[in-house]
Amino acid sequence: MPVNISPLSSEHLLPVAGVSLGIAEAGIKTSHRKDLLVIVLNEGAQVAGVFTQNRFCAAPVVVAKSHLADSAIRALVVNTGNANAGTGESGMQHARTTCSVLAELLHCGSEQVLPFSTGVIMEPLPVKKVVGGLPVAVANLRPNNWFDAAQAIMTTDIVPKGVSKQIELNDQTVTITGIAKGSGMIRPNMATMLGFIATDAGVDPVLLQDITRYAADRSFNCITVDGDTSTNDAVMLIATGCAGHVAINKRNSAEFERLRDAITEVAIILAQMIVRDGEGATKFITVQVEAGRNTEECQQVAYAVAHSPLVKTAFFASDPNLGRILAAIGYAGVNDLDVDGITLYLGDVLVVENGGRASSYREEDGQFVMNQPEITVKVVLNRGTASSTVWTCDFSYDYVKINSDYRS
Amino acid sequence: MPVNISPLSSEHLLPVAGVSLGIAEAGIKTSHRKDLLVIVLNEGAQVAGVFTQNRFCAAPVVVAKSHLADSAIRALVVNTGNANAGTGESGMQHARTTCSVLAELLHCGSEQVLPFSTGVIMEPLPVKKVVGGLPVAVANLRPNNWFDAAQAIMTTDIVPKGVSKQIELNDQTVTITGIAKGSGMIRPNMATMLGFIATDAGVDPVLLQDITRYAADRSFNCITVDGDTSTNDAVMLIATGCAGHVAINKRNSAEFERLRDAITEVAIILAQMIVRDGEGATKFITVQVEAGRNTEECQQVAYAVAHSPLVKTAFFASDPNLGRILAAIGYAGVNDLDVDGITLYLGDVLVVENGGRASSYREEDGQFVMNQPEITVKVVLNRGTASSTVWTCDFSYDYVKINSDYRS
Repeated sequence: MPVNISPLSSEHLLPVAGVSLGIAEAGIKTSHRKDLLVIVLNEGAQVAGVFTQNRFCAAPVVVAKSHLADSAIRALVVNTGNANAGTGESGMQHARTTCSVLAELLHCGSEQVLPFSTGVIMEPLPVKKVVGGLPVAVANLRPNNWFDAAQAIMTTDIVPKGVSKQIELNDQTVTITGIAKGSGMIRPNMATMLGFIATDAGVDPVLLQDITRYAADRSFNCITVDGDTSTNDAVMLIATGCAGHVAINKRNSAEFERLRDAITEVAIILAQMIVRDGEGATKFITVQVEAGRNTEECQQVAYAVAHSPLVKTAFFASDPNLGRILAAIGYAGVNDLDVDGITLYLGDVLVVENGGRASSYREEDGQFVMNQPEITVKVVLNRGTASSTVWTCDFSYDYVKINSDYRS
Repeated sequence: MPVNISPLSSEHLLPVAGVSLGIAEAGIKTSHRKDLLVIVLNEGAQVAGVFTQNRFCAAPVVVAKSHLADSAIRALVVNTGNANAGTGESGMQHARTTCSVLAELLHCGSEQVLPFSTGVIMEPLPVKKVVGGLPVAVANLRPNNWFDAAQAIMTTDIVPKGVSKQIELNDQTVTITGIAKGSGMIRPNMATMLGFIATDAGVDPVLLQDITRYAADRSFNCITVDGDTSTNDAVMLIATGCAGHVAINKRNSAEFERLRDAITEVAIILAQMIVRDGEGATKFITVQVEAGRNTEECQQVAYAVAHSPLVKTAFFASDPNLGRILAAIGYAGVNDLDVDGITLYLGDVLVVENGGRASSYREEDGQFVMNQPEITVKVVLNRGTASSTVWTCDFSYDYVKINSDYRS
């Protein structure tokens, strides 16, 4: 079960001026579930995005990147139940067909539509079902449909994920609403599972791309469930400019930073929700690496700990088997690491110093921390000023069950 | 249960002239199990080894490396039940004490003894128990004790692992016998879990080190169970020179190559046994990457597939969910990989070509291969002549059970 996520309902997700959302049950993989989402934007909305670095990136990712580079975007279309990845040239055709059919319904250009897919890889997209669902989704378009949209993009997710936030910019209230999906195949690499964040703030397009990268690097790029980078990851940031304030066009202005930080906060909440709902998760783990020479080595150590199946099964068992964490730090690939200089904390408990177990450490203190549903592992490398944080979950029977019983 | 390992018995493991082995029940972690092994070598025996690259390497690894560099080795001592890793300065003292007590019993120098430990990390070695067991082990020294030795070094292993082979060198029969242990925390990095191989061949010490590295790179360094590199990995190769043939001292002579290849064969059998007895394993998987630009990129792709929890759970489920293999190839980190050029085979079945599912592929053919206990995944990169092979196992409920129920 998801770890410490309060149940979401429609009143938690505020509409964003300039954005309408429509949902349909297109029967893509199974019947009677919301599996198709259309998002329509006002004229003049700016869109920025980051995408998966997986070389086998999906057909819709290729098409979305190319449309985003060339056109003023008016709509996004998302299907679940099929990833349209590893599908070769016919997959590309299916992604383009989806765009052109939606464009006709919306009276815009086909290249003004961004397509997204998520679900099973390497099976042909049932494009007729997708296209058949589009008129229903368009007829359903409403500004306050964010909660249904969060449900429509779920795959193995147990709970829908979304959050809203409001800030003041130039004495004008600005709304930010984001939704995301993801539970397994989570180790975003410069991008994440699907995430859509919209604001009615007005932002210069170059600055909007800066904010997207900044927020993703501090949120979706800091999580891992199983170390598997998806073929379909994408985070899109939409700024409609409908809030009525003067558009932000200066990097490092107070308004720019306030908006950037608020969007980053939304992205972090969504990213953590993905980990809290990680496949089979029973614990939410923060791995914090401090006092490293550079961010890269801090990340290496943090990911080594966060990916170790032995560390993750020990968390599942609430077993303070801390030697497994030491072993992971040791094989993280930081070749000149002096292990005698490292200190390791489990929660507030000092566990390791001088290359061995701290003399003050008592097993019952470690056990107390291990019994909590939220645990912080802090590794202090004591050789510099850089730091890095990764969020992950434990590794349980249910992870194996979910991924061996169900073709996700 | 282990995958396709024929039960080992004492007659399978031939004595090696110049080598005696003694076992004791020292009660290190639990009572009434063989947990201490002493190996005594003839004067003039040559010993070479490769060790873990983990920065948190264990105290006995540090001591063994230093003794090996400086001295003519006469004995090895191995305990299970405790890794003596992450134990700081007192751990170093314990490893040295173990050597000196054994040296006194054997009337040799303390620096002529190599210590090895395996078991739980970061708990103090119960050195009194180890030392207390040494006289029993020494009294038990016999040349035909290899089977008991294979049992004495087991931890979470279900079956003991060993193999013997004989070849002719200069018209003289030469014997090679090896034992190994390992089941979890297996992703050797220039070394492996514990492996001890002895031959009565005579070999120049420099050439012996060459053979050790050559054999380890083609065997123990090609396996992974869970991607976790142990703190205690070591492979030792012993050449007693007792077989009576003229010692091998020319690299690339026919005799050198015959011995090297026979030792490599023994190492590969032992390494594969470790994977077949991988924690919770139900399938033995060979990941073969061919036609790459260089060995490094072939290894990157092979390990990405072999480490993916999603691929491994699909093998456990016998589910030909091949998109998960594609995704792993795509995120392996080969940045200029052209996915349209890749072909992928499951057993003999062509699965992927031209960036998507092969038109000839039928689900029932994939299912047939997936149902077997031994499966080969072949990835052809089609951009060079290099290749690499990795052996691994699937990821089952029992892996989680073993690592969450038991502090290994």
